[in-house]
Amino acid sequence: MAARVLLQQCFSARLQVKEIQRGALIYVCFFKGATVDIIPKMVSTLLNVKLCESNEGNYVSMLDLPANVIIIPQATLGGKLKGRNMQYHYNIGKEEGKELYEHFVAVCEKEFASNAKCTEAGVVVRHGTYGIRQVLQMDTNGPYTHLIEF
Amino acid sequence: MAARVLLQQCFSARLQVKEIQRGALIYVCFFKGATVDIIPKMVSTLLNVKLCESNEGNYVSMLDLPANVIIIPQATLGGKLKGRNMQYHYNIGKEEGKELYEHFVAVCEKEFASNAKCTEAGVVVRHGTYGIRQVLQMDTNGPYTHLIEF
Repeated sequence: MAARVLLQQCFSARLQVKEIQRGALIYVCFFKGATVDIIPKMVSTLLNVKLCESNEGNYVSMLDLPANVIIIPQATLGGKLKGRNMQYHYNIGKEEGKELYEHFVAVCEKEFASNAKCTEAGVVVRHGTYGIRQVLQMDTNGPYTHLIEF
Repeated sequence: MAARVLLQQCFSARLQVKEIQRGALIYVCFFKGATVDIIPKMVSTLLNVKLCESNEGNYVSMLDLPANVIIIPQATLGGKLKGRNMQYHYNIGKEEGKELYEHFVAVCEKEFASNAKCTEAGVVVRHGTYGIRQVLQMDTNGPYTHLIEF
């Protein structure tokens, strides 16, 4: 496994001082051996999977809703239970992880920016800073939590 | 795999009208073939794994913090990506899932109620209703998201 991503839906969310209205939270974790090569496919999958509830009650993609997005670095998602503790032996190193995370954010921003529906709707892409505490508030009418591994 | 659980830390959280202060969110999903037999081990693991940040900045268990808890049924965690859609073929049936979820909640409540530190601290265990929309608000200084599979 190269990466693990968790998706949640929100009415609104705030990460540190960055706020979004209706959309999605993308929590991202990279494992040892992950390279930038996987990022285009990851982003394409995440932005196109039909997990956003539309006003009509069916599910459409982030690009189709269109959804605002907060991208949250979340290395803890790579933890593996060992006794009463979590171990992170499979997680990517800090420097490499930071690089992949920043590349992931950049590709997401690019995809939203190049989608006419998203630019017309004024979609906002926010993201946290790798390696620091993610102060987060979320308000949802159903987190609709999904896990996608790459 | 019989069950998938996601843990997040919170300052406060509100599920429908049920509110907790500092503690943990436990999102639970059961897969086909899961039985009540796994629940004591699941609860024991979750309540004893050291994933709650103490005032001193180290990590202790939910029972040791002690943490208030919101238990959230989250069948979507069992989804598997297929093309642009998520499929839930491995999820347990609705009736069985409801039964396991309610048993899980009951065992959690019992464990907290039988722990002196938790009863003295007035720990609160709240939970959602299986099969309905989970209207949720969360406020955290770091979700510290962990995945544990059983």
